Amino acid sequence: MVLGSGELGKEIVVEAQRLGVETVAVDRYQNAPAQQVAHRDYTVNMLDGDALKSLVRREKPDVIVPEVEAINTDALVELEEEGFDVIPSARATKIAMDRRLLREMASKEAKVKTSGFAFASSVDDVRKACDDIGYPCLVKARMSSGGLGSSVVFRKTEVSGAYERSVKEARGRGDEVIVESLVEYDLEVTELPVAHLDASGKQSLVFCRPIGHVRSGSHYHVSWQPFLIPGEQVQGYGSFLHKKEDPPRKRLLWSSGWNGKSVKPDLIEEVEKEIYDVASKIVKTFPQPKNGFKRGVFGCELFIRLGDPKTGVKHQVYFNEISPRPHDTGMVTLATQDMSEMALHVRAILGLPIPEVRQLTYGASHVVLASKASWVPRYSGVNRVLSQKGVYLRLFGKPVSYRERRMGVALATDASILAARRKALEAAHQAEAGIIYG
Amino acid sequence: MVLGSGELGKEIVVEAQRLGVETVAVDRYQNAPAQQVAHRDYTVNMLDGDALKSLVRREKPDVIVPEVEAINTDALVELEEEGFDVIPSARATKIAMDRRLLREMASKEAKVKTSGFAFASSVDDVRKACDDIGYPCLVKARMSSGGLGSSVVFRKTEVSGAYERSVKEARGRGDEVIVESLVEYDLEVTELPVAHLDASGKQSLVFCRPIGHVRSGSHYHVSWQPFLIPGEQVQGYGSFLHKKEDPPRKRLLWSSGWNGKSVKPDLIEEVEKEIYDVASKIVKTFPQPKNGFKRGVFGCELFIRLGDPKTGVKHQVYFNEISPRPHDTGMVTLATQDMSEMALHVRAILGLPIPEVRQLTYGASHVVLASKASWVPRYSGVNRVLSQKGVYLRLFGKPVSYRERRMGVALATDASILAARRKALEAAHQAEAGIIYG
Repeated sequence: MVLGSGELGKEIVVEAQRLGVETVAVDRYQNAPAQQVAHRDYTVNMLDGDALKSLVRREKPDVIVPEVEAINTDALVELEEEGFDVIPSARATKIAMDRRLLREMASKEAKVKTSGFAFASSVDDVRKACDDIGYPCLVKARMSSGGLGSSVVFRKTEVSGAYERSVKEARGRGDEVIVESLVEYDLEVTELPVAHLDASGKQSLVFCRPIGHVRSGSHYHVSWQPFLIPGEQVQGYGSFLHKKEDPPRKRLLWSSGWNGKSVKPDLIEEVEKEIYDVASKIVKTFPQPKNGFKRGVFGCELFIRLGDPKTGVKHQVYFNEISPRPHDTGMVTLATQDMSEMALHVRAILGLPIPEVRQLTYGASHVVLASKASWVPRYSGVNRVLSQKGVYLRLFGKPVSYRERRMGVALATDASILAARRKALEAAHQAEAGIIYG
Repeated sequence: MVLGSGELGKEIVVEAQRLGVETVAVDRYQNAPAQQVAHRDYTVNMLDGDALKSLVRREKPDVIVPEVEAINTDALVELEEEGFDVIPSARATKIAMDRRLLREMASKEAKVKTSGFAFASSVDDVRKACDDIGYPCLVKARMSSGGLGSSVVFRKTEVSGAYERSVKEARGRGDEVIVESLVEYDLEVTELPVAHLDASGKQSLVFCRPIGHVRSGSHYHVSWQPFLIPGEQVQGYGSFLHKKEDPPRKRLLWSSGWNGKSVKPDLIEEVEKEIYDVASKIVKTFPQPKNGFKRGVFGCELFIRLGDPKTGVKHQVYFNEISPRPHDTGMVTLATQDMSEMALHVRAILGLPIPEVRQLTYGASHVVLASKASWVPRYSGVNRVLSQKGVYLRLFGKPVSYRERRMGVALATDASILAARRKALEAAHQAEAGIIYG
């Protein structure tokens, strides 16, 4: 039973179907993508704990697979207590969406590098935390997603406004926020570790090659795999502050990455090794479920600061957030790997071994977004989108569009990351232009 | 609307769903594989022309995609007349399942090489045809599939028995049979040409690399892609008669292929070129539909006799039969190509361009067969099946098993065909051993 039936859930259901597994897809709206390929479906508000519990007790699924954050995690904990099998564990789904629990686990238990942070529950405490951490800094709701309730605070006078926004836009009730220092980085990466049982029944981890990505606002927009290839200066978006200037707000640059920095094979190898190391530490720290064992794909979001061999400055890998499930940016694996992140998730969920993840080709993905609201949007011009070699399209079949809603994804493969990204971008923009609304 | 909801139909529906297409799956039994992933489904006897026409007129599908032969093709012709779009054309589905129409088209219009043949509708005429062609020869019903109504006839006294069997086991009524000479070959190959519209809207063909395969009886059992790789002596099953000995029946060897023959790159290239040429001629000869254009994957079955550079004997490519749809042996493309034969079929059906088919890796497939009848069979030991690198499994989710029913397929990739075949075979046999019946 997938809780959440979006585009990731759809591919999860498809991969389960390919292994002969009976599937039930749940979402808050009817005709959600995964519901269209599942054996049965339910339309239910998954934040309603009683509804969720009734549904699960009625269906008695062998496995509960959360696909979104908007689920009543307390109900999941209760269901796990009753003996239901939640992926990767009810407690993990709770931790991953709670910035306090996650940060404490990451820095105190996993002991991985993060931005500086402090928690506060009143405007005075937030102001104090901002002063301590220094400006500019970030203020985020303890629980929220998709960039809601998050602000960059450049000066003391902005603290109370940012705090108010966090409390207002937080998921559920809660007056606690996290204050974070801004990290300088060259590239955002998603690492997809897969917790599973190996052939001998031992808990094991296997890693997908790191995925580079660029957000638009706080949403995934472009991704590519692997994150770096030797000799190619892939353009990402880094965070670089020009603190000396005033006002700093105007100088917050989301600029291109390490232009001019040489990306040598040994550097890539070194950074990649640390990426696996950080992801491994985090996944291992997540608690085991009450019954069974922790398993599935995790989407580990990292900030990468490349080192400079000339000055001897070492690279840095910062842990940011994690999804205890496949990650939006990992859709690129639909075109690049022998098994997509969703196929891997299903293998892991079923307790099947994953002796290897093979990347078959370089590739990129780019979201296809709607520009306005409509019922049953249609798609034209797809023949133009697919006229180039190595270009593929997924249209999720969402029954309704709204502004900026993700309706599909363009996938592209090529001999270089830049070429693949260019093709994916062109294809996505052509697909967007072809959407017929209303 | 797919007519036929087996394992090929399931992947066709999945690929259509991935492009946001609404899907309807039809089969003669409930819970057929494709029905489990489609938006809607119907359980109907598709040989019943009235039922089929009612259903199509009610659903008004944009495209009708036949997936099996057991369809009333006269109803398809009528529906096409009414304006419905049948893939690749109603007439093509009729020709492909009619040995007389197909042979006449292949030899008279496409002018490709086939075994010697003659048609006959009485036991006397069959005897005469067998005498003319020479013993041993083949007697097959004009319309049948899966080896039904086919016999090898070694001597005159066997003719009447073979003819009776053909008439009895034929699809529909009919007393006509084809008598065929036995061709000596080294290897059976399936070529998958894809008829589609290119980016400029022109009718075009693109080819998958040839697939080698071995049957068990008359059913697909093992397949691999490409059919040959340089330097590797892939073992196929050829047909070689030792005519000098008596009785010849005992000496009909379905033996290993060209053991000892050297398979050099230029030889492979030469044969491959001719394979594409033969497939192209056949597909081009199929009639266009009344409305629209001929499109989709074809499964072109060929016998290959390799040449011998030493003696100067040239290779031979014989056309055998063709499916106007994806082919069982093409399931190997699920693991080897950037787009499976079903993904290609969907692209072609939707009128989308296919600028290239990329084979990403060598691979093989092996059927997973049930050993007895049962309701809702279950699968154990899958973790052992998947414990090797580059091994994948599809379980079709068929609700009922019977002896020799195809329940799944094992897929494997490796650096050589032999290694991939070995892994696929082991995986399939392990999967078979793990089926829990009843």
